[in-house]
Parts: sequence; structure tokens; C-alpha cells
Amino acid sequence: MHKIEHIGLAVKSLSASVPLFEKLLDTTCYKTETVASEQVKTAFFQKGETKIELLESTDENGVIARFVEKKGEGMHHIAFEVADIRAEMQRLRNEGFVLLNEEPKAGADNKLVCFLHPKGTNGVLIELCQESKPGEE
Amino acid sequence: MHKIEHIGLAVKSLSASVPLFEKLLDTTCYKTETVASEQVKTAFFQKGETKIELLESTDENGVIARFVEKKGEGMHHIAFEVADIRAEMQRLRNEGFVLLNEEPKAGADNKLVCFLHPKGTNGVLIELCQESKPGEE
Repeated sequence: MHKIEHIGLAVKSLSASVPLFEKLLDTTCYKTETVASEQVKTAFFQKGETKIELLESTDENGVIARFVEKKGEGMHHIAFEVADIRAEMQRLRNEGFVLLNEEPKAGADNKLVCFLHPKGTNGVLIELCQESKPGEE
Repeated sequence: MHKIEHIGLAVKSLSASVPLFEKLLDTTCYKTETVASEQVKTAFFQKGETKIELLESTDENGVIARFVEKKGEGMHHIAFEVADIRAEMQRLRNEGFVLLNEEPKAGADNKLVCFLHPKGTNGVLIELCQESKPGEE
């Protein structure tokens, strides 16, 4: 784990939250992306080496919609950049952490990702992410 | 706002969570500090340019104790480093954000800090922090 690649924030509406975070962070949203497999629309801001990723659900039963309904808008996950996601997944398994997906899956921003079960990480949803290499997914 | 200085995570017990996060983050806790004015004990880990700050309440009625009781352990706040905290506070006031303290106050890690009201920031508790200069507090 080299650095915090991004922090994911669950919001109800990107159209309301993107202008709010542009004012808050004093920077422009540089990208939006829909990740159909995760049922989210995302919007990205850069601060130093870390991105802020806003997440709006595209489905009323999606994971972000359910999160917002249960807990309200707010911090959703922390993503750490790793060089070799399979090696890091194995290291964490060996340490006793529970992974939510046993194989890396395609996430936003051209990444391979894996989530850890928050029950094993003090309630914090942790994502590992690795830049996808051409031909790998 | 230059970068994310730290992410604050509320925990029940540093003695349980410090070893857990050492395994998770694959790095050693490099500092612990008690901030009496905030009724917290803190433990710090470094990842890239950002710190992870674990927060345990020292008082059963402290803000972190009440957070954990209400919401459980998990993500508590995101802190952004600023060069001039008073100038940034004024910029945010002008943008319509509500500050939780009108003057910077002393925080952990030799910082001057100010929090924004999470009702104006999509439920995310935002901290501004500036390295204290000698003689200033």
C-alpha cells in the first residue's frame, strides 16, 4: 500500500454535490464516469496525490442508494493504491482479513479493485486498487 | 487546500486497533498523542503524503465516544492541509459554508484546526489544518 488513491463519498445527487465540492475543495471536477457494474455515477476531484470520488447510485437498490438510505450521505470508503493487487490480497488474507471479492474486479478509473469486509477493519470499508495493465482485467 | 493531511477514524480502543491497523496498512504506528482539550487519544500511521489518525475517546461523554455509540466505529473526518487557515476559513465563509469554530484552535500533531459543519458538506466532517508556527496558537 503506497498511498491513499482516493476517498469515496456517497451522495444523493452529483448535480447538487459536484458544484458544492468544487467550492469546498476550490478545484474543478476533472472527470465523471458511470460504472454500470457497480450501479454508480462517479465524479473526481484531485487534491495532492489523492482523489475525492463522489458516488451517486444509478439504481434505487444499488449499494450506494442503500448506504445513503441507512446512514445518510457521507464517507463511504478509503482506497489504497497497491502495485500488485493479488499479492496484497494474499498478504491480507494471511493476516486474517476477509475479502469481499476473491478475485480483483474492474472498478472506476481503469482500476482493478478489491474490498475488505468492514467488520474486520473497525467499520471502515477499505478498497485496494491497482492501475489496470493493458490486456488485464 | 493543498492535500489531504489526514483521515480520522473513530475507534473504541487504541490497544485493539493499533495492532489491527499495523497489519492492515503494513506499517508501524509512529506516534501516539493525547489531546486533553478534545478528550481523545490518537495514534498515527503514514501512507504516502497522508496520515491515518485513529481516535479513542478518553471520556465517555466525549465527541468520539458519542460518535461511536451512535454510528459505530468508522470514518470520522477528513483533514485538509492549508497554508493560511484564517484565509481559508474566510474563503469558505464567503462560499456559504458554516464553521464549527470561529477561531482556529489547537489540535493534535501541533496543528491549528477548524471544522466545518457536516450539514453543509454532504454529511462529511471536514477539518482544515495548518502547521502551528512558533508563538502562534
